[in-house]
Amino acid sequence: RFLTSAQTTRDDGKKSRDFQQVHCGATPTEEMNGAGNLMDFLDEPFPDVGTYEDFHTIDWLREKSRDTDRHRKITSKSKESIWELIKSLLDAWSGWVVMLLIGLLSGTLAGVIDLAVDWMTDLKEGVCLSAFWYSHEQCCWTSNETTFDDRDKCPQWQKWAELMTGHTEGAGVYVLNYFLYILWALLFSFLAVSLVRVFAPYACGSGIPEIKTILSGFIIRGYLGKWTLLIKTVTLVLAVSSGLSLGKEGPLVHVACCCGNLFCSLFSKYSKNEGKRREVSYYFPLKTLWRSFFAALVAAFTLRSINPFGNSRLVLFYVEYHTPWYMAELVPFILLGVFGGLWGTLFIRANIAWCRRRKTTQLGKYPVLEVIAVTGITAVLAYPNPYTRRSTSELISELFNDCGSLESSQLCDYINNPNMSRPVDDIPDRPAGPGVYNALWQLALALIFKIVITIFTFGMKIPSGLFIPSMAVGAIAGRIVGIAVEQMAYHHHDWIIFKNWCRPGADCVTPGLYAMVGAAACLGGVTRMTVSLVVIMFELTGGLEYIVPLMAAAVTSKWVADAFGKEGIYESHIQLNGYPYLDVRDEFTHRTLATDVMRPRRNDPPLAVLTQDTTTVEDVETLIKDTDYNGFPVVVSRESERLIGFVQRRDLTLAIKNARQKQDGVVSSSVVYFTEDAPQLPASNPQPLKLRRILNLSPFTVTDHTPMETVVDIFRKLGLRQCLVTRSGRLLGIITKKDVLRHMAQMMNQDPESIMFN
Amino acid sequence: RFLTSAQTTRDDGKKSRDFQQVHCGATPTEEMNGAGNLMDFLDEPFPDVGTYEDFHTIDWLREKSRDTDRHRKITSKSKESIWELIKSLLDAWSGWVVMLLIGLLSGTLAGVIDLAVDWMTDLKEGVCLSAFWYSHEQCCWTSNETTFDDRDKCPQWQKWAELMTGHTEGAGVYVLNYFLYILWALLFSFLAVSLVRVFAPYACGSGIPEIKTILSGFIIRGYLGKWTLLIKTVTLVLAVSSGLSLGKEGPLVHVACCCGNLFCSLFSKYSKNEGKRREVSYYFPLKTLWRSFFAALVAAFTLRSINPFGNSRLVLFYVEYHTPWYMAELVPFILLGVFGGLWGTLFIRANIAWCRRRKTTQLGKYPVLEVIAVTGITAVLAYPNPYTRRSTSELISELFNDCGSLESSQLCDYINNPNMSRPVDDIPDRPAGPGVYNALWQLALALIFKIVITIFTFGMKIPSGLFIPSMAVGAIAGRIVGIAVEQMAYHHHDWIIFKNWCRPGADCVTPGLYAMVGAAACLGGVTRMTVSLVVIMFELTGGLEYIVPLMAAAVTSKWVADAFGKEGIYESHIQLNGYPYLDVRDEFTHRTLATDVMRPRRNDPPLAVLTQDTTTVEDVETLIKDTDYNGFPVVVSRESERLIGFVQRRDLTLAIKNARQKQDGVVSSSVVYFTEDAPQLPASNPQPLKLRRILNLSPFTVTDHTPMETVVDIFRKLGLRQCLVTRSGRLLGIITKKDVLRHMAQMMNQDPESIMFN
Repeated sequence: RFLTSAQTTRDDGKKSRDFQQVHCGATPTEEMNGAGNLMDFLDEPFPDVGTYEDFHTIDWLREKSRDTDRHRKITSKSKESIWELIKSLLDAWSGWVVMLLIGLLSGTLAGVIDLAVDWMTDLKEGVCLSAFWYSHEQCCWTSNETTFDDRDKCPQWQKWAELMTGHTEGAGVYVLNYFLYILWALLFSFLAVSLVRVFAPYACGSGIPEIKTILSGFIIRGYLGKWTLLIKTVTLVLAVSSGLSLGKEGPLVHVACCCGNLFCSLFSKYSKNEGKRREVSYYFPLKTLWRSFFAALVAAFTLRSINPFGNSRLVLFYVEYHTPWYMAELVPFILLGVFGGLWGTLFIRANIAWCRRRKTTQLGKYPVLEVIAVTGITAVLAYPNPYTRRSTSELISELFNDCGSLESSQLCDYINNPNMSRPVDDIPDRPAGPGVYNALWQLALALIFKIVITIFTFGMKIPSGLFIPSMAVGAIAGRIVGIAVEQMAYHHHDWIIFKNWCRPGADCVTPGLYAMVGAAACLGGVTRMTVSLVVIMFELTGGLEYIVPLMAAAVTSKWVADAFGKEGIYESHIQLNGYPYLDVRDEFTHRTLATDVMRPRRNDPPLAVLTQDTTTVEDVETLIKDTDYNGFPVVVSRESERLIGFVQRRDLTLAIKNARQKQDGVVSSSVVYFTEDAPQLPASNPQPLKLRRILNLSPFTVTDHTPMETVVDIFRKLGLRQCLVTRSGRLLGIITKKDVLRHMAQMMNQDPESIMFN
Repeated sequence: RFLTSAQTTRDDGKKSRDFQQVHCGATPTEEMNGAGNLMDFLDEPFPDVGTYEDFHTIDWLREKSRDTDRHRKITSKSKESIWELIKSLLDAWSGWVVMLLIGLLSGTLAGVIDLAVDWMTDLKEGVCLSAFWYSHEQCCWTSNETTFDDRDKCPQWQKWAELMTGHTEGAGVYVLNYFLYILWALLFSFLAVSLVRVFAPYACGSGIPEIKTILSGFIIRGYLGKWTLLIKTVTLVLAVSSGLSLGKEGPLVHVACCCGNLFCSLFSKYSKNEGKRREVSYYFPLKTLWRSFFAALVAAFTLRSINPFGNSRLVLFYVEYHTPWYMAELVPFILLGVFGGLWGTLFIRANIAWCRRRKTTQLGKYPVLEVIAVTGITAVLAYPNPYTRRSTSELISELFNDCGSLESSQLCDYINNPNMSRPVDDIPDRPAGPGVYNALWQLALALIFKIVITIFTFGMKIPSGLFIPSMAVGAIAGRIVGIAVEQMAYHHHDWIIFKNWCRPGADCVTPGLYAMVGAAACLGGVTRMTVSLVVIMFELTGGLEYIVPLMAAAVTSKWVADAFGKEGIYESHIQLNGYPYLDVRDEFTHRTLATDVMRPRRNDPPLAVLTQDTTTVEDVETLIKDTDYNGFPVVVSRESERLIGFVQRRDLTLAIKNARQKQDGVVSSSVVYFTEDAPQLPASNPQPLKLRRILNLSPFTVTDHTPMETVVDIFRKLGLRQCLVTRSGRLLGIITKKDVLRHMAQMMNQDPESIMFN
């Protein structure tokens, strides 16, 4: 049963590739033709009308119209009886119920994943003797013998080698621990990649590019399915615990979307309307904002009651600095921004190049081997360096931290002035001790390691997020810069730049703040999610005080990165995979016209059209057999070429099949007509077939002189699938979303054939 | 000079009313017709092409296209020389420069207004002897003789009666102070209304409805002008200081918009493009978000350096509560939400009814008298009650406040248990003393007074905002409920509902929190600005802790108010004034079709059209003289009615005038043609006139069967001015934005003639 379900999904995926050449979209019509009285008749015989095929784009206008109809029906029925009124109230509230359920489930999953990751990450190094399901931290919390200084050391927690050999020191012990660490990592990652391969191939990657595409109105069946939800949750834990350079934030978004899809299927309002189910398209309606806010709140409360971070706080890295920042510090902050932008550019280019190689060469055929190899290399290189051995989020947390007087970490090994006794919170700048210099070297090595390995990790066939590795790169670089500035300010406080704000004995530089700024810059460079970034960092710091440094770095990083290429990592992956995503941010500024883009091109065969009252059933069937367009324009006659409407392939097929079975006298030579009244035919002719009810009488048209800039805007804002091109009322051609995307790719000097879906 | 400037504005306004019957929009064409090589020629002879008339709607698609052209030109020129490159860089940065300037100026103005309001509000009661420009608070700050308990009393600050008579007590002194208070109030409000009347009639009201309309693409010349800026700033101070029940938040938005417009005129990028100047239309581009954020930041820093609130904080009401809230408290919070919703509905209905009466009866002719009368009534009723005598923001601040052990105000007159000595921050619930009961009565009276007077105040011909009065109503109601719950919990802590969370001696109810929740609910009920509300309240509280109470109240209030009518106060005023504003939130769910809305209606004369090559110059001139449409469709011939384009009235007039003056052989009987090649004419005919360059070859069309739902969506999302209606390529009619708005009004059972502008 497992296998079948997953296989089906995969087959759909493969099948869809065969549809690549389809270039015509189609608009179903029942709601748009104003023939409301025919709707009931229509609902019955064509149960499939209105659904989309896999890997097709949805028509937003039509989905909206369908929802209005549904709403209208419920409202009018609700006046009939109490029962119908209750049903209408339930319908109105279903959105909130779905939000509540999503919040509860995704909050729970996030908490469970956090706890599981903590436990399994520590399992690579050792085990808690008092309760094997405790992580290192939980194990030593419950221990009574731990002093404040040695929070991490308690007798209950034993490393594997200690447990096996009884020794805690020596080269042999180290090697054994090293070996077991690698072994656990390989085991976790092998399990992860195998589960993904076998049960839910869609569970790999971060899922953000696909979700962006799906939300913009694209169908990928199974991508947000139950199996994907289950397998992604499990494999995410395994992948993060294996110590690979990846994060869990992106995949968590995918998991939450799967929850949403799951609960949507409980309510016909959402399950039957692809537009309503997405609800957030390019534009975010106010109502949706409230609901998202509500869902986020429920999730946050659920998460807090699980309390995975053990500090009653909802944020991953809680920071509190005691020193304000100074104007002059903007210079290093902006430099960190430049670094973030360069890192973003490097990462995107290198990662895309590697992913393209994976797609096009033999490499892509051995995903399990690839994951195993990368895990092995990561584990081998990571273990010797204390800053890469631990989990990346712990590393970031330490880098963000301000060195209080009680900190015992290597990074806080400053030489204290014994004569000074100040309150705990206000420690002046001090000279760095040997521990700090040691840490600097290790951090520099960790930086290079993270930069290189992340490029190869992101995009493998396991769940993998980018937030944490990107932030780690930035935080390491930021902390190094921060310590450098701090030491410079201490040793050279007579320099002009330091004179004004950094007198001797003052606490003027906070290296932790630099780490945070660096993290924001690197995250911004990679994702370009500038707005979300500011919100995230607001959450982290909780004040206006540090928004200026963060913003300065994030904006610089965005500018630097944009100078090398406008696309963030997610957009680049969307392009690499050829998804039909019309980015609102891409400004189209070329002077091409609709006539340059429309099909048929010069030398192409003429457009496949139907006439309003001269085509026969046989003609239609031939046309359907010979072409694979999704729909056909209907014109008055081939001579006048005046457009009267558009008919969808799917509806046409169903209508004719139905008529042949149920309607007497419909034969191959019957004339199909789309007009209100039957055409005047000789008495000898067979009975004609009226198909006006499936005709969309309001197809979208533009003239051939319309600038493509306007056409792109129309496609984007109205969510069209296709648009007909006319001149003085004559039909000239058709432009589909795919044509628009191809044209945009071409204008940006990219391969137009990279746009694959319709 | 003053008079002329203001008069001109007014005249424009009056003139525009005569244009009410104009129902055709028009789209200029230079960028859309693909005739780029003609552009230079076009730029010269018609300098007015591309500008809009006062009280007209702009065409977003066209403005966007114009900006793309400008940008393209600059980019291509920038490769020619260093100077052009620098110019192009300056152009790219001008947006940020404008933001910086806006931030600086509006931050400064906000600070100055705050300081001036503080001083003038206190001036009504007395004066600072040591320095007359000090407000009461500043005066006593600098005094050495003030103890902490008597912060408000210092010898330097003297009430007017004390200064005049030397006495501080007695009925005569009270009456004299009362009388002078009223006199000052009348003086301030008279000055305010006179300044508005004489110099800048657009400076009245909150300005939010008009700004919403202007941002959605409407021209009101002078509304955001220099004079409006100056006069609104001055009169806002006067109006707020006069003690009227109005706030300064709404007018400050108008002031900031004026700043924006002022600085936009420095850069041709913005001053010459109505779309670019607005930039924020219905959709908020990411780039704009960043820039707004930047401007807000600059403004915040400017404001902080002025420090008008004297507490280094950027928020008006800084609150800090020490007690969490309990689930059971959601019941009173939701009740406050219901109150807020009811207040919102009552206020909107009563205020709109009063404003309609003002517009339609004699009342509207005596604005100065009205203001004087309302100020007089307000001052007479407000002075005796200490909660209405002081400024409303001080009142709100006190109501939000948690009663610490050091508070000396009447509201904090609780009976302390002498045996308990607890830390300052953790005071248990205590029984209320006589002061609290006294305060409750006064607050109840203040509540009724505020509710009634605000209805008559908002909409008078002075700058007036709604935030503060609305919040005051909510805060008073909330505090009363809060004290009631607190006392109930103290005296009946054995009741089941209190048993779980409120043991004796615990601090379980914070009346200040109730006040805040009430304020949010009332603000939400009146404005329905739910999102902004959450952000504002986030700012106020700075934590997730109180978001649930706030959200519960705000959502309840919105639901209750929405049940009585979807429009907030601003939308209601937009409707009352007949502005052409297409609200994104209004869902259009009726089943009408384009054919039901388009002009000409049945029995109307046929649509005024031009033919592509048979109309003469004289025909065109007659058409322009006889009709007042803003533009005319061009068809192949009157028989075929096939549409080829759209030409704007303004362009047509200019082109013909120009041709008659400069082009030889163009006479009344010359044929005007819009085709590429001149028509075949007998040799005896005068030289024809080619006007293809002013023809818009890509007018927007829909079919007559298109549902109005879709048409409304298209108008909204693409920002169209008009749309042509066709059937099978034949032109049937035209739908303008005004027709859409009228149709929507009709469908909502409102008077369609209330939509006045085009």
